[in-house]
Formats: sequence, structure tokens, C-alpha cells
Amino acid sequence: MPEETKNPCSLTTFRPFARLFGMKNRSKLGFSLGVDYGTNSVRAVVVDLDDGKEIAGSVFDYPSGEHGVLLDPKDPNLARQNPADYIEGFFRSVGEAVRKAGRRRGFRPDKMVGIGVDTTGSTPIPVGRHGMPLGMQPSFRKNLAAQAWLWKDHASHEEAAEITEQVVRSKRGYLAKCGGTYSSEWFWSKILHCRRTAPKVFEAAYAWVELADFIPAYLTGRLEPDALPRGICAAGHKAMYNDSWGGLPDEAFLARLDPKLVEVRRRYAAPALTADRQAGRLTAEVAARVGLPPDIPVAVGAFDAHMGAVGAGIKPGTLVKIIGTSTCDMMVAPMDRELPDVPGLCGVVPGSIIPGMYGLEAGQSAVGDIFNWFVKQLTPERYAKRGDPHEYLTREAARLAPGESGLLALDWNNGNRTVLVDPLLSGLLIGQTLHTTAAEIYRALVEATAFGALTIINRFEEYGVQVREVINCGGIAEKNPFVMQIYADVCNRPMKISRSAQTCALGAAIFGAVAGGAYRSVAQAQRRMTGVKAKVYRPEKKAATVYAELYRLYRRLHDGFGTPQAGENYYRLMKELIAIRSRCRQR
Amino acid sequence: MPEETKNPCSLTTFRPFARLFGMKNRSKLGFSLGVDYGTNSVRAVVVDLDDGKEIAGSVFDYPSGEHGVLLDPKDPNLARQNPADYIEGFFRSVGEAVRKAGRRRGFRPDKMVGIGVDTTGSTPIPVGRHGMPLGMQPSFRKNLAAQAWLWKDHASHEEAAEITEQVVRSKRGYLAKCGGTYSSEWFWSKILHCRRTAPKVFEAAYAWVELADFIPAYLTGRLEPDALPRGICAAGHKAMYNDSWGGLPDEAFLARLDPKLVEVRRRYAAPALTADRQAGRLTAEVAARVGLPPDIPVAVGAFDAHMGAVGAGIKPGTLVKIIGTSTCDMMVAPMDRELPDVPGLCGVVPGSIIPGMYGLEAGQSAVGDIFNWFVKQLTPERYAKRGDPHEYLTREAARLAPGESGLLALDWNNGNRTVLVDPLLSGLLIGQTLHTTAAEIYRALVEATAFGALTIINRFEEYGVQVREVINCGGIAEKNPFVMQIYADVCNRPMKISRSAQTCALGAAIFGAVAGGAYRSVAQAQRRMTGVKAKVYRPEKKAATVYAELYRLYRRLHDGFGTPQAGENYYRLMKELIAIRSRCRQR
Repeated sequence: MPEETKNPCSLTTFRPFARLFGMKNRSKLGFSLGVDYGTNSVRAVVVDLDDGKEIAGSVFDYPSGEHGVLLDPKDPNLARQNPADYIEGFFRSVGEAVRKAGRRRGFRPDKMVGIGVDTTGSTPIPVGRHGMPLGMQPSFRKNLAAQAWLWKDHASHEEAAEITEQVVRSKRGYLAKCGGTYSSEWFWSKILHCRRTAPKVFEAAYAWVELADFIPAYLTGRLEPDALPRGICAAGHKAMYNDSWGGLPDEAFLARLDPKLVEVRRRYAAPALTADRQAGRLTAEVAARVGLPPDIPVAVGAFDAHMGAVGAGIKPGTLVKIIGTSTCDMMVAPMDRELPDVPGLCGVVPGSIIPGMYGLEAGQSAVGDIFNWFVKQLTPERYAKRGDPHEYLTREAARLAPGESGLLALDWNNGNRTVLVDPLLSGLLIGQTLHTTAAEIYRALVEATAFGALTIINRFEEYGVQVREVINCGGIAEKNPFVMQIYADVCNRPMKISRSAQTCALGAAIFGAVAGGAYRSVAQAQRRMTGVKAKVYRPEKKAATVYAELYRLYRRLHDGFGTPQAGENYYRLMKELIAIRSRCRQR
Repeated sequence: MPEETKNPCSLTTFRPFARLFGMKNRSKLGFSLGVDYGTNSVRAVVVDLDDGKEIAGSVFDYPSGEHGVLLDPKDPNLARQNPADYIEGFFRSVGEAVRKAGRRRGFRPDKMVGIGVDTTGSTPIPVGRHGMPLGMQPSFRKNLAAQAWLWKDHASHEEAAEITEQVVRSKRGYLAKCGGTYSSEWFWSKILHCRRTAPKVFEAAYAWVELADFIPAYLTGRLEPDALPRGICAAGHKAMYNDSWGGLPDEAFLARLDPKLVEVRRRYAAPALTADRQAGRLTAEVAARVGLPPDIPVAVGAFDAHMGAVGAGIKPGTLVKIIGTSTCDMMVAPMDRELPDVPGLCGVVPGSIIPGMYGLEAGQSAVGDIFNWFVKQLTPERYAKRGDPHEYLTREAARLAPGESGLLALDWNNGNRTVLVDPLLSGLLIGQTLHTTAAEIYRALVEATAFGALTIINRFEEYGVQVREVINCGGIAEKNPFVMQIYADVCNRPMKISRSAQTCALGAAIFGAVAGGAYRSVAQAQRRMTGVKAKVYRPEKKAATVYAELYRLYRRLHDGFGTPQAGENYYRLMKELIAIRSRCRQR
């Protein structure tokens, strides 16, 4: 991409002067709108295209269920959402954000160049003949199977195993690019589960549409399922879509799972598109309700983490880590040379993050969730007495030197996503004495997640994807210097923090800007609209030396308990425990 | 011992009638006194020789230091005691117990047949030319090295390692019967440490006497060190004494550690005696101060756990477990056949528990201490709110089925005493998820100690010492049905509880009775004076089946992390962590 290395816009040169004289009161390039559909709420931001600054924003909490999630007391694996919440959420959050922006000097609705949308996923929605969600029809309003199947719905674990088995048996390479194991969270598992457990809903559904595709289609009036623009991000990472094998898995393969799945494939418009493309233009009806002019270009949708990576400044050599309850670790690699299959990655999809590059996704299945678990279940009163237990534990843990607790943990309380791709692994803590304190264990758990992070970095590099820079974003990166310093020391690399606290919404706005023509490419937009904070966590040499030693021990446990190759007799141990647990719980 | 299988005393036949008519108001055989020197206090009990019932008792808390222990803020390993506390403790506790007994019908001081004494150990005391403790001389009163070196004093760990090395290098079998490793808690380590760090005290000390030997010597006026009666229990278990190699380690061996140790050996009267023998008779002076007649026989002293085993009814085939903060596991075996060396046992000493039998000692270095650690460091407020956290955790943990938590732990927070004899092992917990609760971990820790208990039972049986019965005593056995049921289920054996809550003092009283001639043998006295409670914890089949499966996993972890033979690369892992910890703490 040599074209993008030139500075595309010389007007930036004048910016310092403009600022100096307080003249920065109008955007030269205009604005874009980013709409970020999270698990519990939707956030809309209006972004200045000159510098990526958010000039207005609004959050709308989904009104249905528990914090927006529809649950089934009989099945703890089930998690659905009311699709009407998404539509109401768009009108409320965007309407409010646009109103707020209107109070800022320099903003006018007609300066809105484009709209981008990111969502959770895989969150497939069964839709009717004209593309509207079945769950919004009166006869299906109370039927959980007719709602959106939220990403974290795990009811379809049996179907997932069956699909994996079928891929292996059919010798198709469908899973080579996504870790070798199909997940219960993904598109086909959920649809197959619906077919088997809620056949009436399945029959009534004309097609299945990812939330990331549904929103742009709704905004642009392009809901007809047979022509609805599908995004490559959801398709490639969750539906085994790849242009090299002709799109979705072939009909013979799907028919062997269930003949009815063939229809789902036939009503799925190919080819899937990258998110710099327009899904269409804002309809007059939607525009009127949010105070915008009609016909604004709307970008093809993608997943939150992937647009977040763009908002954080991802580029070749830059690892973006979104660190929250779990992590998503993303890289991009140029497509001018063949990329080897990287074992254990969740996904490698051309164009899923930045058009024209491979998008590589890895992740840790629990990070903040482990710290929260420890605080909830195992932290004595004296920590809670002085406020947030996390803060007090952190203060005590920060006083410890690396290695001095004698503790070592594996970060597998929720299984291991990368590089082992094994949800049936569990936690491990070693080195306890009669003097071990809660703060020592808390620190060991933080260190364990850092060792997990390093394992992902090493895996990328082992397969030729150099990590020259790490940019962190998400709640923990924003708020927790203690954790970030340990990550820097353990990984022995500087840890940078994304400048924007809302990287997903910013990423969506960037795609809106590119789809709307304000920038020629995502990379060009990123150079203007993204950046990192001045504060960089740099590794301390002493700590890094101790952690290098501890990491060798971590790897011995990691390989011994997590892989069959190591010649240990521990590989099956965690699974045997889980098998015993399952049997004992059934009684 | 065919003589002891006959019923020695037909008068028991009349007992039920006597009770029925309220006639049991006088002891036919008289009484004995048991004096039990613990870590924080001394307890005296007056026991009815007919049935072993305690008719009066008194406890005296040592007044010096913290709960009787002299500490050094500069050295956390140091633990000493003021020997004057022992003497005052005898007068106060025994005086009070005898006074109380005097208020019971049937008791008269002249019916006191004998006195037995048990103490902690190894607790050596430096004494002067005439056998009185140096620490009681004005010039040494404030010198910590001149006091009694309490069993749990670990200041001498370097000397212990040196002694072990010297035994190996000299190819002497001194440690074959005590686990292969000399401990910092033991006799010679402490004396050598005194020689090196407090040479003035060492020079002033004419001899070194175990507390278990000092008390009987003091009571009988036989303090002259060169003739002071030494007990086989302390000598055999802690000072590498064995008649087969001529008593204490030979002079050449000791001289290689330090030439001055030869003098210590020369002032040590051999042969060491079993505790059914008289150390002497109560002096008029001591007798007058506690309200007893003079000349009552006083038995040779022994350690608390060993006399406790006797008080609990130990005999061939019976394992006695004293379960408290740690455990002591004891068996006896007839000496008519050769006993193989049992690897990992703390000690095998002829006559140390019951005269004429091998005394076998094993133990777990932490049991109640692990539960206490968990409650102190890792139990959230909601458990404490409702009273004793142990009770509330137990209530919740008791509701869980075996295996259903998916957790497994190693009980090594304080190292492993038997069968691995390795103080540098540490704890391990495996199987945690994001839903694991404190009660689940608490139960896993209890189960881990039960697995440790089973490992000891198995080790005895692997070497031909059959365990036909398990009798438990100590605080946990007395008060914790939850723990005892898990022990029954894990070991798949009935768990009996000793009838007496004060088995150590009762055991001492039994030795007093035998030394005083009321019974011909310890076994004969035991049959009359000891017993078990009606409540027996019996294994539940379902639980035992699950635990058999979990124990196989426990053994894999146990052997993998605890032994080099298993071909795992984990054997060094805990030690490497501890090495890192030591280095990091020094900085």
C-alpha cells in the first residue's frame, strides 16, 4: 500500500497554529457516526474526522431481560436478546448523540459523512421473508428461539462438537483458519440447535442474519435476505465462509448435518464484503427519526473487537489487545505473501479487520473475569472494608516483588482459547504455604494472565508474524496501571494504551468515514483518527529477568496439563476431573 | 504376650451391678497421675485405674513469652521456653488436680499409685553440673540460648542439613529408621547450633537433657546428668539413639561435626529406658508441695503423641491418628519378626510407644493448619458474618457431593512429612472455574488431607504393617464430624474416636500406673483404661467409589510433583519456585 504512506492531507500542518489561536472550532473533513452494539447496551458517538475526537456520544441500555439479556432459568447456557431493543437502541442513542453534537460549534447534520456499525457476534437472528426478525412478530414475541442468539449463548455445544467432527470426517479444511474446533457460540451451531429444538421457529425463519449485518441492512432498507449485504468479518470468523472454497461450506457438507441447512446457505448473499464498503445509504425514514439527512453512506458491519482494533490503530506489526473480562488479541498481516496456518488462533480471515490484509484473531477466555471471581469468592472482609477490594488487593499486591510469593498459576478458569483451544481446561495454583496471602494469589492470577498473553505473542512470532508494538485498550488497559506494568514486565515489551477509551465505536466511525469517502483507506483514516496515550508501560529489567524464569515454569505446566505432546501423564487429568464433576453433579 | 490375653481382673464382672445401685464410689485399684506438657500449657489429670476415667484435672498456662513461647523478633525460626515455667507448672497444675480429686468420694492421696509424664519434643535443655537448667541461673536468665529449645524451633536448619550429609558421607545407618533426613527440630541440630551461635552457653552447659527426661528426673531428685535416666522415645526418635549401634551416634561421627559434641555424648546415661520403667520415686519436697505422699513411683518420660497413642488404645493393627494443626500417625508392631525399613516414616524405634514393640511414627505436616490458613487468608466476609467461618464453610461444604466441585488439592502447604519427607514441597489446587466457591475449596482441602492420610495407611500396609483399625483423637477428631466422615469415605474404613478427650494425659497416667505396679503391662492397663466412643464414622459406598477415583488422580499429582521416579518433569518445579522466592525475598 505505498499510496498510503504519503501524508494525504497537508492541512494538518496548520493545526498547531489553529489550536494556538483557539481557532479549532470546525472540522475540515466533517464527521462520522460510529454505532457500537455491546452485550448490554448500544453506544453512538459522533467523531471529528480531522483527529478522531469524539464530540458527542450517548449510551442506551437494552430494556429487555437482565441487562438486555433474555435468560432461561431452566438452561444456564441460554442467552438471547430482543431484536426490538437493537432498533429502539439505534434511534435513542443516535438521536441523542446527534442532538448533543448539534450543541457543539462546527457540527451540522449535513457534515455527517458516513455511518459505521459494529456489534457482538456471532449473534444470528432468524428473520422472515422480508428480513425483519421473527422475534418482532406478535406470534413469536415470547418465543426465546425466535430472538437474537447472543454470542455467549452456549446451548448448542453438542451441535458444535458434531460440526467439528463432520469437518474432520469430510476432510474439508473449513476449520484450518479458526483453531480447528467449531464453537457453540458460532453461527451454524446455533442454527442447527434451533432446527432440532425449536423446529417451528426454524420453519418460520426464511433466513438467518448476523446482527452485524442486520443493522446496516435495516438502516439502508436492504433487508431482503437474498440480497442482504453480508460482512466478511462475521462470515469468515463464525460461519466458515472463505472465498477460496466458494463462500460458505458446500451444500453436500451442510446436508450431511441437516438437509434444511442447505436452504440457509441458499438465502445467504455472497460474496461477503469488507467493512470499508457501503452496505447502502440511510433511508429517509430512519434519518428523519435521528435528525440526520437521508442518503448518508452506511458501511458494511463487523464485530466490535475487530473495529476496536482499527480504532486502536492496528497495522502490520501491531498487536491490539482488548483487555476486559476476557481478551481479544488481534493482528493484521499483508496478503502479498502466504500466511501459514497458525495453530491455536481463533481465526485468520482475509479482510476481516482491515480490507486487503489478513485479520488474525486470538484471545484469552478469561482475564478480568478471573480477578472478579477471586474478589467475589475468596477475598476476606478486611479488603472490602476499605472500599473496592480490587483496589486494596492491588495496593498490597503491587508492594510484592516478582517471584517473592513463590506462587504460580494457570489462567484457565474459563478454559483456554489461544493457543490450546480447549474449553475443558481449568485453573491451577501452585506454591501455597501456610503464610500465603490473598494479595499474593491476586498477583499470581494477574501474572498468569500476563503469561497467557505472552504465549499468544510468542505463537504469532513463531509463525512469522512479528509483534513490533503492543497497543492495549479496554477497561483494564484504561484503568489498571498495576496490571499493565506486569504485562510489560512479563512480555518484556512496552505496553501502549489506545488514546480513545471507546475504540470500538471509534473504529466503526472510521469505517463510516471510509465508506463515506472522507478517506481513501482505513490506514489513511487511522493515521489521522487514532493514536496512543503519552503514558507507556515499559519493562523493568529486574522484573523481566525474574518473569522470564517464571515463564519457563509456566510453560512446563501449560504444556504438561494442556497438550498431549509433552509426554506427561497430566494431559488428561483436568478432563478426568471434569468428567467426574459432571457425573457427580447429575446425581 | 500370651499372658496379657487373659482377663487379669475378675472384679470388673461386678461393676454393672455396682453402677446400677450407685455404688461406684471408690476405686479398687487406686489412681494415677498423668502430667502432659504441651506447647502452651501443662495439664495434670487424676485418673481412676479401674476404668481410665479422669476424676480431676487442671491446666496451667505457661506465664513466659507469648503463650509460653519465647520469641526473637529478629529470627522467626526461633522458639524457646522458660524452664522455670515447667517447674511452676507442675506444682500449680498437679497441686490443683490433687485438691480437686480430694473432693471426689473414694480418692485419697495415699491411693495414688504412680505418676507419668509426657512432653513436647525434641525440646532439649542445657543444664549445669547438677542438672538444673542453665536458664534458671541468674546470669543466664535473659539468654535465649540458655532456655529450653522448643520442638518447633527451626533456627538450626543448616546444622540439620549438615548432619544429614554427614550421616550419608559416613555411610552410617543412623537415619534409616527416621525417614532419611535429620530435622532442624531435633536434638543434635539444636546443640550444634548452640555451639556455633552461643558458645558461652554451650561452654557453661555441662549436659543437654530432653524435657521429657528432665521432668521425671526433677520429680525424683535424679538430676545428676551422668546418671539421669533417659527415655527411649526421645533418644530413639530425635537423637539417633539405637541399642543396635551402641546407643547414640559414635564419637568419631560426632567429632567430625564438632569435637565438643563428644562431651555431650559422654554425659548421656545409657541405656535409654522405656516409659513403663521407674525413673525414680517422688521426692518428699515435691510431694509436700502438691499434697501427695512421698515415694510415689514416677515413670520414665516420653513424647506427648506417643503416650497419646497409648491413651487412645494403640495395639498391633491399630493406627492411632492425633489430628490437630498437623497429625501424628502411630502404630506398633511386634518385635518377634524383623520389620523392614519403611521409606518415608518419621521414625521406627523399639519400645518408643509400647515396651517390647516397635513404635512407628508417621505424620502430616499440616492438617488443621491448612483449614485455618484458608479461613484466615481466603474466606469472604459473608462466612464470618454468621459466626465461626469454619462452621459456616463446613455447613456449605457438607452439602456438596464428593467430586462435584471438580477440584483437587495437594495437602502440602507446610511441606510433606510422610511419605515424601520433604519440607520444601508446597500446596497445589487444580480444577478452579469462574464459579468455584470458597466452600468447594474448603472441602477440597479437607479431602486433600484425607488423601494424605490414606497415603500413610497405604505405606504402612505396603511394608507389611496391616492397618485393621483406625482410632482418631485430637481436636479435629473430637469436634468435626464433617472431616471425620470424609476421612472414612476417602480411606474406605471406619473411623473410630478415642473415648478420652485427653489421650496424652491419660497415656501418661497409664505409664504411671504400670510403673507403679497397678498393672503388669501397658496392654493390660489399656484394656481397662482406654476405649472408643459409640459413634463410629463408617464409609458410604457411593462416596468411597468417587474418592477411589479421585485418589488415583491425587496420586498422579503426588508422585509427579513429589518424587523423581515418576519420569515427570515436575519433580523440581516446586523447588525451583521456592528457590526463586528465596532469591526475590532477599532483595
